[in-house]
Amino acid sequence: MSGGPRRDTKWWGWGDPDEEPRVPEESLAVLREAIGDAEPWTRPAAAEEVRLPEPRRLPPSLTEAVGAEWVLTGHEDRVRHAVGRGYADLARLRRGGLERAPDAVILPARPGQVERVLEICSAERIAVVPFGGGSSVVGGVEPLAGEHGRVVTLDLSRLREVEVDRRSLTARLGAGLRGPEAEAELGAHGLTLGHFPQSFEYATIGGFAATRSAGQASSGYGRFDALVTSARLLSPAGALETGESPHTAAGPALREVVVGSEGVLGVIPDVTVRVRPAPAARRYEGWFADSFEAGAEIVRAMAQEGTLPDVVRVSDEEETRVSMALSGPGGTAGRLFDSYLGLRGKRDGCVVIIGVEDDREAAARRRALAVRKLRAGGAAYVGRAAGRSWASGRYHGPYLRDALLDQGAMVETLETSHTWSGLRRLYEGVRDAIRGALDRQGTPGLVFCHLSHAYPDGASLYFTFIARRRPGDELGQWAAVKGAASEAIVGAGGTITHHHAIGRDHLPYMESEVGPLGLGALQAVKDRLDPAGIMNPGKLLP
Amino acid sequence: MSGGPRRDTKWWGWGDPDEEPRVPEESLAVLREAIGDAEPWTRPAAAEEVRLPEPRRLPPSLTEAVGAEWVLTGHEDRVRHAVGRGYADLARLRRGGLERAPDAVILPARPGQVERVLEICSAERIAVVPFGGGSSVVGGVEPLAGEHGRVVTLDLSRLREVEVDRRSLTARLGAGLRGPEAEAELGAHGLTLGHFPQSFEYATIGGFAATRSAGQASSGYGRFDALVTSARLLSPAGALETGESPHTAAGPALREVVVGSEGVLGVIPDVTVRVRPAPAARRYEGWFADSFEAGAEIVRAMAQEGTLPDVVRVSDEEETRVSMALSGPGGTAGRLFDSYLGLRGKRDGCVVIIGVEDDREAAARRRALAVRKLRAGGAAYVGRAAGRSWASGRYHGPYLRDALLDQGAMVETLETSHTWSGLRRLYEGVRDAIRGALDRQGTPGLVFCHLSHAYPDGASLYFTFIARRRPGDELGQWAAVKGAASEAIVGAGGTITHHHAIGRDHLPYMESEVGPLGLGALQAVKDRLDPAGIMNPGKLLP
Repeated sequence: MSGGPRRDTKWWGWGDPDEEPRVPEESLAVLREAIGDAEPWTRPAAAEEVRLPEPRRLPPSLTEAVGAEWVLTGHEDRVRHAVGRGYADLARLRRGGLERAPDAVILPARPGQVERVLEICSAERIAVVPFGGGSSVVGGVEPLAGEHGRVVTLDLSRLREVEVDRRSLTARLGAGLRGPEAEAELGAHGLTLGHFPQSFEYATIGGFAATRSAGQASSGYGRFDALVTSARLLSPAGALETGESPHTAAGPALREVVVGSEGVLGVIPDVTVRVRPAPAARRYEGWFADSFEAGAEIVRAMAQEGTLPDVVRVSDEEETRVSMALSGPGGTAGRLFDSYLGLRGKRDGCVVIIGVEDDREAAARRRALAVRKLRAGGAAYVGRAAGRSWASGRYHGPYLRDALLDQGAMVETLETSHTWSGLRRLYEGVRDAIRGALDRQGTPGLVFCHLSHAYPDGASLYFTFIARRRPGDELGQWAAVKGAASEAIVGAGGTITHHHAIGRDHLPYMESEVGPLGLGALQAVKDRLDPAGIMNPGKLLP
Repeated sequence: MSGGPRRDTKWWGWGDPDEEPRVPEESLAVLREAIGDAEPWTRPAAAEEVRLPEPRRLPPSLTEAVGAEWVLTGHEDRVRHAVGRGYADLARLRRGGLERAPDAVILPARPGQVERVLEICSAERIAVVPFGGGSSVVGGVEPLAGEHGRVVTLDLSRLREVEVDRRSLTARLGAGLRGPEAEAELGAHGLTLGHFPQSFEYATIGGFAATRSAGQASSGYGRFDALVTSARLLSPAGALETGESPHTAAGPALREVVVGSEGVLGVIPDVTVRVRPAPAARRYEGWFADSFEAGAEIVRAMAQEGTLPDVVRVSDEEETRVSMALSGPGGTAGRLFDSYLGLRGKRDGCVVIIGVEDDREAAARRRALAVRKLRAGGAAYVGRAAGRSWASGRYHGPYLRDALLDQGAMVETLETSHTWSGLRRLYEGVRDAIRGALDRQGTPGLVFCHLSHAYPDGASLYFTFIARRRPGDELGQWAAVKGAASEAIVGAGGTITHHHAIGRDHLPYMESEVGPLGLGALQAVKDRLDPAGIMNPGKLLP
């Protein structure tokens, strides 16, 4: 990498600084109707206006480790690394003051420099927060010092090596590669990783690995953790590397301990992942199911028969209604759906998006199998325009969120998964809990959901809620709703996170995921790999 | 379970006591030609003749925990639980004396009884060896006391509960269920697990989970570890249970730590696994590829295209030659191959077996895709009879081994895996290392291999070697050859075990699998879950 650290995103929100947040005029009425009149939400004009604590002094050895130009202590760089991109992060930025910021941002160029930094920080008892794209929505990059006096953020964006094994269809990818960068490198070999989460444009390979990310096409390509064939971890106690072949019976799978470790055990400098030939055909299309339940049953049938498309997404009734009314993928799509479905006499029901990415023949074959299940389940074809509309807006959600925030809305998403048997109760429980909590806050709003990431044994649910913010108490309001949703998830036996990770926000629920002994086992690994407890304090492990 | 502990297998060898080992007369000549004249190998006439150390006294609380009739201290029961079914185990049994045997065999009826036994043994410092089908070929059930004075074997055969979730296509299966028992239970629901290792008839669900087993149809159904959706571990420090949905981003996957833990962290009383509708069609068939390399390339193409059959197996030139000459799957098949291939002018080359298990339409579709790759790779169709012959003999190998031992042969198998890029070097290195070691022992013999269990990124190799035993030095001879093969595996970057596990025999190579820090991390987990160090000492972790 040349040209210094990345500063090519908005410091206060999502993505490209040239893309101004905008809610189309026609959608504002819908929003107002749903959440009432909201007080517009301003934001500081410049990063310099965001108040930060004074940086604490760091040992010069850190500068020697990576070179002075790669230890950043400027105000804007500290702001850029002080928060992720969850609603609570954005709310704090808009408030204009952060209680915490890294004392410095360190950008190692090589794994050896990472090791040196960890060595120094262990000796000096300085907390270290690994940082990839900074797109965590669960407080994963929050610069908490834990029991230590100081905290540095380790920005891994310079670790971008790529090594392709064309014959084995694997690639070792540096942690700092953003989604599009990895795809470009692989594309030069005619390959794809196939990992396209909503954060794709800015999130990084290391972040995908550390958080067990899942992408929009993960029903086909697999979750990121399923793509990893070999993992490497640089911990304060040394390096750990799993064998080249993941197909082994040599004891517990340490690869699966490194993956998902969220920076608390060490730094993932790179991972080796399965890649595939870049598909010649990408076909996305819209269908309309009679109900959310009917759509879910169609997906279950596909998943259990082994004929899932790569992308599969079923919106519930409310998400269908909202996406037809609001801008983004639904604005155009809404009109398309209307005209198609009017012809078929269907008005109520749920949007289903499917997508197949493969060589032409396989794509046609796989689509035909999927279509058979859709028709058997009573779904009506809406067309490719709806699919294209979804695809063109697939990374747009976070931009739209900023625009809604400007309008004075609280917008948050959360996700879970369960077995097919447990899914309905989980869906109703979480939906009703969010609605109830919003009501209790005096801010009733929109609560909707889609099912995506299907598996033979279950599926994920992704909830979005939009409500009028409570000016001055945005964080209290958010915590109340998030807490109610989380309790409902735990109560229904779902997982607290299907692909956003634990971070800081889900910490209270980690014990219900793995039990006290599971926590003890993970803590034992941490104590062994990070004896000084410097790695990402306050995340994942209570 | 009623009727007391299982005693329905040979105490001295594999399987059904009514099935007498036999090498067909026509094959004896082939064997003699390959390994020379061997001195027949006798075995003790009865289990009572096998010398064992005297059992040590155990606390009465153990008897109270499970009931007196479920604490076995009889000679035959101790012999039955003193060894697994590796070559070294069988050689020691034939020698008529074992250095170690459990002081008692304990058969808990419920998970609660397991917990009570672990509690007592922790307090009393008694080593505990979990025992499923006793089919370990790597010393996994060896009753080592470690630093403790006494050792009990915990036979889990009474833990056979079954709970099916038809809607989610999952089933919770008790650890003590043998392969056919699990299939029978699932079959009553129209389901199958699809896990068919060679040990299928006697190995158990708990053993599959503890060792990361892979079956003959795992290219389609997946390795056992890939089938597990939720795992439970009863450790001396308490119970650990992973969530119902494995599709979670909540930190490192503890499920993958329980699976493969080989009894050193605790007891797996049951696991929840993915199941499938029982296939209406099972079609196995034989093909003939130009060479092992050509056959492997065909499998790679299938695996990377996503069109692998459920069963795929490519024998190398030597295995092809031997299987055509020797009895078992090859005896009949050999003649079939001869007649088919003679017609096609192919004489040299390699047998390929493929099998598809699915509903009729999907089976036909999937077979057609596989056939296209076989033809593209230059393979010739041999027919279904060859496939049926393979299928009918698929669990017969261990019986044949006993018969060859009677003839005075050493017979051993070992397995590894690598990426496609690393496979050729691994194959040649291990094959040559075994040949060389046999030569140095003065017992040149047969060394052959097949590729099975294919993945998009690599495949496993399964080696068999047969040589004249060195009477009186069987274990020294075996250790020399096994050691040379293991060093070659490590040298070529393969894993020391693709599906047999680490146990005692692969212990010296565990560090090259995960490195010193990986061992440290696993040991830290063990120290937390098993502070007294009673669980299966001397296995998995050095």
